[in-house]
Amino acid sequence: MNKINRREFNKTLVKGVGGISIASQLPFHSLRNRFDKKSLGVALVGLGSYSRGQLAPGLLETEHCHLAGIVTGTPAKAESWSKKYNIDKENIYNYENFDQIASNKNIDIVYVVLPNAMHADFCIRAAKAGKHVICEKPMAISVAECDAIIAACNKANVKLSVGYRLQSEPYTLEVKRIVREKVFGELRYVSADAGYNSRGNPDQWRLNYALSGGGALMNMGVYAIQSAIYGSGQNPTSVSAQEFSTRPEYFKDTDEAIAAQFEFPSGAVGNIFTSHNANVNRLYSAFDKGWVELNPANNYGPLSGRRSDGEIIKFPHKRQQSLQMDDFAKHILTGSLNRAPGEMGKRDMIIVEAIYESIKKNGVKIDLNLGRLGIVE
Amino acid sequence: MNKINRREFNKTLVKGVGGISIASQLPFHSLRNRFDKKSLGVALVGLGSYSRGQLAPGLLETEHCHLAGIVTGTPAKAESWSKKYNIDKENIYNYENFDQIASNKNIDIVYVVLPNAMHADFCIRAAKAGKHVICEKPMAISVAECDAIIAACNKANVKLSVGYRLQSEPYTLEVKRIVREKVFGELRYVSADAGYNSRGNPDQWRLNYALSGGGALMNMGVYAIQSAIYGSGQNPTSVSAQEFSTRPEYFKDTDEAIAAQFEFPSGAVGNIFTSHNANVNRLYSAFDKGWVELNPANNYGPLSGRRSDGEIIKFPHKRQQSLQMDDFAKHILTGSLNRAPGEMGKRDMIIVEAIYESIKKNGVKIDLNLGRLGIVE
Repeated sequence: MNKINRREFNKTLVKGVGGISIASQLPFHSLRNRFDKKSLGVALVGLGSYSRGQLAPGLLETEHCHLAGIVTGTPAKAESWSKKYNIDKENIYNYENFDQIASNKNIDIVYVVLPNAMHADFCIRAAKAGKHVICEKPMAISVAECDAIIAACNKANVKLSVGYRLQSEPYTLEVKRIVREKVFGELRYVSADAGYNSRGNPDQWRLNYALSGGGALMNMGVYAIQSAIYGSGQNPTSVSAQEFSTRPEYFKDTDEAIAAQFEFPSGAVGNIFTSHNANVNRLYSAFDKGWVELNPANNYGPLSGRRSDGEIIKFPHKRQQSLQMDDFAKHILTGSLNRAPGEMGKRDMIIVEAIYESIKKNGVKIDLNLGRLGIVE
Repeated sequence: MNKINRREFNKTLVKGVGGISIASQLPFHSLRNRFDKKSLGVALVGLGSYSRGQLAPGLLETEHCHLAGIVTGTPAKAESWSKKYNIDKENIYNYENFDQIASNKNIDIVYVVLPNAMHADFCIRAAKAGKHVICEKPMAISVAECDAIIAACNKANVKLSVGYRLQSEPYTLEVKRIVREKVFGELRYVSADAGYNSRGNPDQWRLNYALSGGGALMNMGVYAIQSAIYGSGQNPTSVSAQEFSTRPEYFKDTDEAIAAQFEFPSGAVGNIFTSHNANVNRLYSAFDKGWVELNPANNYGPLSGRRSDGEIIKFPHKRQQSLQMDDFAKHILTGSLNRAPGEMGKRDMIIVEAIYESIKKNGVKIDLNLGRLGIVE
């Protein structure tokens, strides 16, 4: 495993001495991480709002990894991020020279935060560069691309995970526990809604099929699929789906809203809804002797949960992305569980493709052959 | 309008004097109602668990109507009810001599609580007997039967309502208000789940297609349909549906579980699930600026409600059936709103038939042409 290079750290210190004091520039955690041999360097690829608002701040709160580099096509962003996070010029790349990251010992993990259609390309290039990979969700825009990413990571012998922050999130883990331990008996039904009302710039990449590979389903719908699976503890055996369109002038070539129904091996039924036209954010699992519910279930938190027996589910809030990235760093460093492996992202993309196929075929049921693909516990 | 006949009341009193004292036999309300010229006499047709557990006790708590007669095919039930509720022999009928109820001045309203397949026959006979009619939900087992009931009531110039107790229930009315007044802005999504886990006698009439006309959908599904409509304030324009079966040995000829999706004129989407294999009981309406939720949403109460702004919806509990029957009695006596007219029951049966049609056609979308049929406000 790559460890932080002491020489690099010293160089940073020296730079600091000549200018503004290091203490005022570097948050405590970031500084501590650089002393800690067990902290891995993360490079963010793509500096959009998620990197800016969640991942970079999240990397100031992690214990086992830290922000070490950036990859951006916008020189002005390189400049401002370099200042804000004290990133050396040698740890800054653009999309053309990105592959040179292979020789950069400061970078252990590459986190691909680009539009969906660019995930496969950059994840594969990162793997070829010998870096561990976090691929933001959805993993790619096709199952074939997921396979290519997994193969590239296997070939390069690097670790791969999908940006499923909720797999490390305590409310979500508590729901998983309640399902797994049958706290309320047998599960019969799981319902998950995930969506928001998109009214912004119609030219955003999420509404551009070439970049997103799909609309609500490829964005919030992936959360609903994830919720239905961890809210039931099972991979579905079939899916049927319906599409709804009321603002075609805004949603020019991506799906506005989709409902889908799952059958599970136990006989439980799943019912999901995702939308770019409705603010919904819920998970509900119904068992023989009670239910558990999260609402919100998939925003950045804090989440909120309750149970049919009146118990409130409550955990101290920690930034989900910090928990997620730390879990992946621990997986690399110690061999602990990879909570969101590539196979999980691929499984969800198989479901996404089946949902689109069902819609194309007017809602017929599509059989899924997922077996134990991915981690459902 | 028929009023309570003083002679009948006196006769009851006289009977009481000769035996056990009236005061010990008649609850206060029942006694008061008989003094009150504005209280209408109700005859229950069918003395199953709903009549026994809800309607008869409910009629002890009503102000504008009271239990005046019974219709049963079981002599032992006639005997025990007669004693328990002090019902004169002349107000007791069986299914053969039921039509003689026409000449009984004590009976103003006939409430048909028989298995679904018998609703049309007895509602039509009640109308022909000149009695106002409450038809338990679902109104019948086909739209054609609903039409026949409505026509019979119109012809006889009697009032008709469907046993939609929640249309008079305060939590439900509060959801309707929130929708109508756009407290949280535009509605985008409504979700309703209604079901229970049926594990009892497999020979019960609800699981017998000839008597029920359908399974989960014809039982709890009607609540989910109602919820989707009053939770959106609109009649749907289309529906698609899917059926799920995991215990065919138990659900021999009725549907076990069904999901259905609605399109509404405003562009909102509805998503319902009903089951005889899962305990679910929820209504959720999502608006641009918040949401409102009932859980439970359709049991006998007390219901429980909350809003996205943290406000808890709370009302004193009153028996829903008492509120429902009083509302119908007031409608007859004063011309106030009929909260659940026959057209509403017919509308819901049109939707039920469309859901079964969609399932038969592998989930294709079925257009509905409901217009303003029934009351949606």
